Amino acid sequence: MKNIKKKSDKKVKKKKTNLQKFIRKSTDKVGLPPGTLVHVGRYKLDKVGIEIFNYNKDSLIEKKIDILNTEEFSVDKYFPTLVNSNLMWVNMEGVHRSDIIRELGKFIDHNMLVLEDILNTTQRAKAEIYDGYIFLVLKMLSYNENNDEVEDEQVSFILGKNFVFSIQEGKEGDVFNPIRDILRKENSVIRKNSSDFLLYFLLDVIIDNYFIIIEKLGEKIEILEDELINKPTSITLNKIYSLRREILFVRKCVWPLREAITAISRDETLLIHKKTEGYFRNIYDHLLQIADTIETLRDMVTVMSEIYMSHLNTKMNEVMKVLTLIGTIFIPLTFIAGVYGMNFEYMPELKSPYGYPVALIGMSFIGLFMLVFFKLKKWI
Amino acid sequence: MKNIKKKSDKKVKKKKTNLQKFIRKSTDKVGLPPGTLVHVGRYKLDKVGIEIFNYNKDSLIEKKIDILNTEEFSVDKYFPTLVNSNLMWVNMEGVHRSDIIRELGKFIDHNMLVLEDILNTTQRAKAEIYDGYIFLVLKMLSYNENNDEVEDEQVSFILGKNFVFSIQEGKEGDVFNPIRDILRKENSVIRKNSSDFLLYFLLDVIIDNYFIIIEKLGEKIEILEDELINKPTSITLNKIYSLRREILFVRKCVWPLREAITAISRDETLLIHKKTEGYFRNIYDHLLQIADTIETLRDMVTVMSEIYMSHLNTKMNEVMKVLTLIGTIFIPLTFIAGVYGMNFEYMPELKSPYGYPVALIGMSFIGLFMLVFFKLKKWI
Amino acid sequence: MKNIKKKSDKKVKKKKTNLQKFIRKSTDKVGLPPGTLVHVGRYKLDKVGIEIFNYNKDSLIEKKIDILNTEEFSVDKYFPTLVNSNLMWVNMEGVHRSDIIRELGKFIDHNMLVLEDILNTTQRAKAEIYDGYIFLVLKMLSYNENNDEVEDEQVSFILGKNFVFSIQEGKEGDVFNPIRDILRKENSVIRKNSSDFLLYFLLDVIIDNYFIIIEKLGEKIEILEDELINKPTSITLNKIYSLRREILFVRKCVWPLREAITAISRDETLLIHKKTEGYFRNIYDHLLQIADTIETLRDMVTVMSEIYMSHLNTKMNEVMKVLTLIGTIFIPLTFIAGVYGMNFEYMPELKSPYGYPVALIGMSFIGLFMLVFFKLKKWI
Amino acid sequence: MKNIKKKSDKKVKKKKTNLQKFIRKSTDKVGLPPGTLVHVGRYKLDKVGIEIFNYNKDSLIEKKIDILNTEEFSVDKYFPTLVNSNLMWVNMEGVHRSDIIRELGKFIDHNMLVLEDILNTTQRAKAEIYDGYIFLVLKMLSYNENNDEVEDEQVSFILGKNFVFSIQEGKEGDVFNPIRDILRKENSVIRKNSSDFLLYFLLDVIIDNYFIIIEKLGEKIEILEDELINKPTSITLNKIYSLRREILFVRKCVWPLREAITAISRDETLLIHKKTEGYFRNIYDHLLQIADTIETLRDMVTVMSEIYMSHLNTKMNEVMKVLTLIGTIFIPLTFIAGVYGMNFEYMPELKSPYGYPVALIGMSFIGLFMLVFFKLKKWI
Amino acid sequence: MKNIKKKSDKKVKKKKTNLQKFIRKSTDKVGLPPGTLVHVGRYKLDKVGIEIFNYNKDSLIEKKIDILNTEEFSVDKYFPTLVNSNLMWVNMEGVHRSDIIRELGKFIDHNMLVLEDILNTTQRAKAEIYDGYIFLVLKMLSYNENNDEVEDEQVSFILGKNFVFSIQEGKEGDVFNPIRDILRKENSVIRKNSSDFLLYFLLDVIIDNYFIIIEKLGEKIEILEDELINKPTSITLNKIYSLRREILFVRKCVWPLREAITAISRDETLLIHKKTEGYFRNIYDHLLQIADTIETLRDMVTVMSEIYMSHLNTKMNEVMKVLTLIGTIFIPLTFIAGVYGMNFEYMPELKSPYGYPVALIGMSFIGLFMLVFFKLKKWI
Repeated sequence: MKNIKKKSDKKVKKKKTNLQKFIRKSTDKVGLPPGTLVHVGRYKLDKVGIEIFNYNKDSLIEKKIDILNTEEFSVDKYFPTLVNSNLMWVNMEGVHRSDIIRELGKFIDHNMLVLEDILNTTQRAKAEIYDGYIFLVLKMLSYNENNDEVEDEQVSFILGKNFVFSIQEGKEGDVFNPIRDILRKENSVIRKNSSDFLLYFLLDVIIDNYFIIIEKLGEKIEILEDELINKPTSITLNKIYSLRREILFVRKCVWPLREAITAISRDETLLIHKKTEGYFRNIYDHLLQIADTIETLRDMVTVMSEIYMSHLNTKMNEVMKVLTLIGTIFIPLTFIAGVYGMNFEYMPELKSPYGYPVALIGMSFIGLFMLVFFKLKKWI
Repeated sequence: MKNIKKKSDKKVKKKKTNLQKFIRKSTDKVGLPPGTLVHVGRYKLDKVGIEIFNYNKDSLIEKKIDILNTEEFSVDKYFPTLVNSNLMWVNMEGVHRSDIIRELGKFIDHNMLVLEDILNTTQRAKAEIYDGYIFLVLKMLSYNENNDEVEDEQVSFILGKNFVFSIQEGKEGDVFNPIRDILRKENSVIRKNSSDFLLYFLLDVIIDNYFIIIEKLGEKIEILEDELINKPTSITLNKIYSLRREILFVRKCVWPLREAITAISRDETLLIHKKTEGYFRNIYDHLLQIADTIETLRDMVTVMSEIYMSHLNTKMNEVMKVLTLIGTIFIPLTFIAGVYGMNFEYMPELKSPYGYPVALIGMSFIGLFMLVFFKLKKWI
Repeated sequence: MKNIKKKSDKKVKKKKTNLQKFIRKSTDKVGLPPGTLVHVGRYKLDKVGIEIFNYNKDSLIEKKIDILNTEEFSVDKYFPTLVNSNLMWVNMEGVHRSDIIRELGKFIDHNMLVLEDILNTTQRAKAEIYDGYIFLVLKMLSYNENNDEVEDEQVSFILGKNFVFSIQEGKEGDVFNPIRDILRKENSVIRKNSSDFLLYFLLDVIIDNYFIIIEKLGEKIEILEDELINKPTSITLNKIYSLRREILFVRKCVWPLREAITAISRDETLLIHKKTEGYFRNIYDHLLQIADTIETLRDMVTVMSEIYMSHLNTKMNEVMKVLTLIGTIFIPLTFIAGVYGMNFEYMPELKSPYGYPVALIGMSFIGLFMLVFFKLKKWI
Repeated sequence: MKNIKKKSDKKVKKKKTNLQKFIRKSTDKVGLPPGTLVHVGRYKLDKVGIEIFNYNKDSLIEKKIDILNTEEFSVDKYFPTLVNSNLMWVNMEGVHRSDIIRELGKFIDHNMLVLEDILNTTQRAKAEIYDGYIFLVLKMLSYNENNDEVEDEQVSFILGKNFVFSIQEGKEGDVFNPIRDILRKENSVIRKNSSDFLLYFLLDVIIDNYFIIIEKLGEKIEILEDELINKPTSITLNKIYSLRREILFVRKCVWPLREAITAISRDETLLIHKKTEGYFRNIYDHLLQIADTIETLRDMVTVMSEIYMSHLNTKMNEVMKVLTLIGTIFIPLTFIAGVYGMNFEYMPELKSPYGYPVALIGMSFIGLFMLVFFKLKKWI
Repeated sequence: MKNIKKKSDKKVKKKKTNLQKFIRKSTDKVGLPPGTLVHVGRYKLDKVGIEIFNYNKDSLIEKKIDILNTEEFSVDKYFPTLVNSNLMWVNMEGVHRSDIIRELGKFIDHNMLVLEDILNTTQRAKAEIYDGYIFLVLKMLSYNENNDEVEDEQVSFILGKNFVFSIQEGKEGDVFNPIRDILRKENSVIRKNSSDFLLYFLLDVIIDNYFIIIEKLGEKIEILEDELINKPTSITLNKIYSLRREILFVRKCVWPLREAITAISRDETLLIHKKTEGYFRNIYDHLLQIADTIETLRDMVTVMSEIYMSHLNTKMNEVMKVLTLIGTIFIPLTFIAGVYGMNFEYMPELKSPYGYPVALIGMSFIGLFMLVFFKLKKWI
């Protein structure tokens, strides 16, 4: 069965043109009353993967479960009971099962709006601060080397006093491995600190990946610049435009995130500790830097399309000029030949034995003169 | 009589070009003192349809009345008296009768400015918060599949402690059916909650329809992009420009609505409960997302017209280049033919039996040489 | 004497090009110390028209006086003494006599800055709130059907506790007739209310006229659009640019007015009553709507000039293409004819009786082939 | 010696291209520690002119001194001691002597930053409010009729409780004469008021001159518009671009000044009296008006360059079209002539006595037909 | 070993294209947990140079140490112990050794985020205010005369109560020599003041260098303008675009710095004394001036590329026009020659002895006529 799935997945992916990156089907929900938990998304996996890290300074219990689409899920069955100082990180992959998401509602007073947002993978990055928990949703970007495209995956975070949930849209793989490694080390910085610290680490690793995307885009620009100088074709222009769109896409992910991070770092609940605030400001600084660079990239791409146009014009003009020049030199000569091709009976030149060579020499002379004249005028 | 009406309606609709979508006749009122209740609008129906939902947690009384243009209307006659915890939703279709709107004034202290705004269907989206009631006006967008155009209908809302009025401009049909269904279910979420909750549901369903419009526009862009790549004509450009206008129109509806929703969610009267505020913020988030996407669409359309122009130029240039090339190759050859067409008596080549073939071969050679030269120069 | 005046007026009007609408002579005052009362303006009438409405709920005394330029003016002589609840509206036409304006200073503590602003008809719209009175200056727009142009006239308002002054630049006619009619009705809404209410009515009627201007501009755009599609000439472009300027001019009048109205509606003096504030906010909403529409019009005009350019290009390109095509088809044929016009003695084809028809057929064939080829390439 | 100076002055002026107006040598100071008093400027006069007005309501003592570059200067020697209600206005021309400026430091607690700013004539307009004095620096603009250029001169003001210093960069002449005249009148408005009032008058007269500049620029635009319509050359474009730069230059002077004036009018020290605040707001309004007009001028100039381009294109296109048309008409005719110039032995037409006239008529007919065809197609 | 280093350094530099100035490798850190101290930068020197100035009003001890990459570093070993009123300025060159930077952590409570930022040379300019110290990072710009490019070097500052650290990226040379000279003078302004004063002097000297960069860019623009007028080539356009990028780069350095300086000058800790605040505002003013000028430069460069394009077009058009004119004059003449080259037997003109001269004269006449006609039409 998995085989069939994969195939249809591919099809979906294939249809996902550039445009659909921007406006994804969020109309599945239209007509339904608000608060209805419906999955809106591209991926429909055949299971939900759940990782649970139950840790404190001294101990760590790691658990990994796969909930098949046919299985039931209950928080009580799978999640550990948190004792005193213990913290829990739950990392889920797959948001296609609304019943599972509904179960998570137990941790956040069954706040339907939040659960809806988790299920809807077309969210704009935002942070919402509630009593007792913070909800954050953003896009995790990765670079697909196969089709040379930036890909996005939605990740929702719920930060509670003693838990962090990270709920991914569920493409294979994520960027959290460094965090897992740190967690597994006894007495590591995360183990020693509160839950907001874990959230910071998770965000930091996602934002770090934005830098990679930026660099990839930068490399693409460099390659295109080379192409632009050496052998620009109309494909180059298409590439420029598609790159421009990709930059806009990344921009659309980063822009609202800045506000979200500001909201968190200014949070006045006790979830974000004084100490961690500086760290979130640090993330904010990174986002500013990324935003700056995106603007620069955008500007560069704009200039590139201008250069392309001017290059095209210049080249075309050169060709037309040379062609017209050739024509212009021969037209008067042809006229002279035409004159001596007239059939008047009394044309003295025609009788002269020197007529022909003189005509030839004269025509050469005129042609040469025009060449020199055009050269002097810098038209050639 | 209805028949005649329909016809003139069509005429009006036909005249309603793109431009009139933006600046609708609001000059009917010029010269009248402010506070004069005059209908300003496109549609003049022959009746006003009124639906009344009188409900509380346990019971629901639904009533539907049509007030013909010849009939009188009085609130006391048609509207139920609200007892204790009962809530009332009144949904009207048709704003062409100022006397009916004036009657509604009874619920809002005869606030003439509000009544005027309800009658004037050229409003910018806005919210006004008064003592005891909130007034909200916005555009409901729908996609007309017949003429492939976005259509708008003005809806005014009045939210009171125990009533919600929704007053539609009065085209046939609306998007409120899901709300009606929920209302009819006993103990449903709306039935259990206060009037602001009903308003939220009504708004949510309208905003959801904005997403559909956005997607339709997105599809149009995709179709145009295909056309642009495969066989762009000057009609394509016209379509691009008309699409651009449509996007601007939707933008003009969404932009001011954001402020209006903010105003409501920050309301400090007791009409919007603490609990519902989050819901209105949710609507605000949706509007941000829509606004974002509109900007993206705008950008895309701009790029498309640029691509069209560059494509046109490139194609034209190609044609001119090939044509000029052909000319350029034959002009020197014609000159040679002209030379040997001269009538000089002493042209030794003419006498030679090899003259003709040598000339032909020479000309072919020159032609070929030019072809190769142009090829090498990448001009062909 | 009036006759002569009219003539010179016309001359002035004629010279008033588009540009001068934007930067009107305000240099008359340069070099004079600030606070010097000097008239700066285009119109210099031969009299000042004064209308005085002295009213309360029950009674209205209406007076109309013309002060010739040779007559003296004194407030005490012409203005009524206001008893208890009586209100006074003074409407003046003509600001060319600084002595009259200076007399009005009696009502506003001889505030020279305000008097200066009234005399200077090149003001940017603004509101200034003083102790005991509010000063507001704005442009009244009207559409001159004769020369198809938007015309402006400056109006200054002074709102006091029991008086409103409206001082017009003094072109013939104004838009206040509806207000006069209401005033004359006993027990009418203005008669029953305080002075700020009268100011609101006066402003409302001026702003209503802005809508007419907007619609006129809209109509112009529609006409130009038709012209653009059917037979665009270089005059069309000039019209587009001049329309653009007109839109900018209206924009320049509306933009600062928004701030001014906000300032008034937020006034904390007791001149604007709580109740009237809502009305001023209503005017503000209208201004927003007008500003929105102006932006749309601007955008449309920009697009129109783009379309014009692209249209011009396309048309030109079409012409050049066809012309070049004709040339390109005949140039090779001419070459062939040239070949058989060569005078070589041994050209076997020339002797053959089929030579001529074969050549003709061959040439037709080549010509046809090229036509078909170009057709297939979609160059024709 | 003065003669030599003048000459070198001219040279400097000549080199002062448009660009240098924007980025003037301010690198003279690089490497020096901050607080070092060094003159940075274009003009280095051979004397410093000082005017001192020592006045109160009843009396005025006017003094004029020239400090040659070889002379020493000391405040105690030249400046009067201020008794009670006396005010002093000191107007200096020339900022090339840092020792004199340093002497002035006595009045402002030897504030090095202010003294530095006075000496550096490349300042951006700004106001700084200190304890006991206000420092304001701005550009005085004048129009040089000789080279048709806007010229700027820096003026620094120091406003103290009982003195105003105005320190000019020191080109010949200033705009303060009206102020001097008012001062000399007994009981005049300045004489009766505090020092801030004098500052207001000085500023007002400078800002008034901005209006003249604006009008001059407006006139230039009108002249260029005429030129654009009647006989546009490539020089016209250069003029447009240079005018654009000039407008940008004025804008750069006005823009920051607005903030500076706001800062002064909001000053909470006691230097600016409640009463004068309104006057400074008045100046601010003027600046807004100037800024508005500058934006309009900018827009106009942009449109002008667009019109120029489109005009150029249109004209060029017309020429090319006509030329190509002529060619296109004759090419087929030449082909026909070529056909009958072929040397086939058996061409029956050649034998016929009607051949020649028929051919001629045929060709005329074809030519005419093409002419008519092109005419119908509106290509001519 | 140093030799090898140098070489590889060069390679790196060479690869550092324009683009890499904007997006520098910051991906080295991706995957590492936040707070890991890793050097991210272009330069990897073989030593870290440390200068220590230990001073008070009366005495100065200057020390210079080079820490080779193989040597260990410890603050206790190299740094003096600060007694009472003594201040310390530590200037480091080279940030490639994270262990040294970690040691500095002792002065700032081991704040990992700050240490990370110092090691990462891809920072956006920013200021962070902590308890007891201020962290400031910015770019020091210098102009490389060899490759005519603006180069940047990151400098981090840490301001404590009695120390200032300035940590440079470590290219050879800096701009601090004037500061060193002042420090060495007994009783100099820095020696007499607190640490914030030293920071101000260091910043001032860096900002002063920005002015030099701006002027260099201004000179480049002037040179390019000359080139543009005298002999524009496609290289000119490339230069314009590369200059544009350079301006954008400087802008990117200056823009965020303004905020950082504002943050410092508004600091409410006791590190920045009331007195010094004015100085920081002074720096802010300079940055505003620089930012203004950069915008002007940007605008100029944009106009330059427009001028280039228009120039190119004009020139090309001129050439094409002349060429087409030549063709157009000869084509009808060639046609006439063709007519008399026809072989009809009965062409009376051919027999006439005047035929030939008349034809020649006729053709000259037609040619002349066309020339005159084109001249009158101003096409030549």
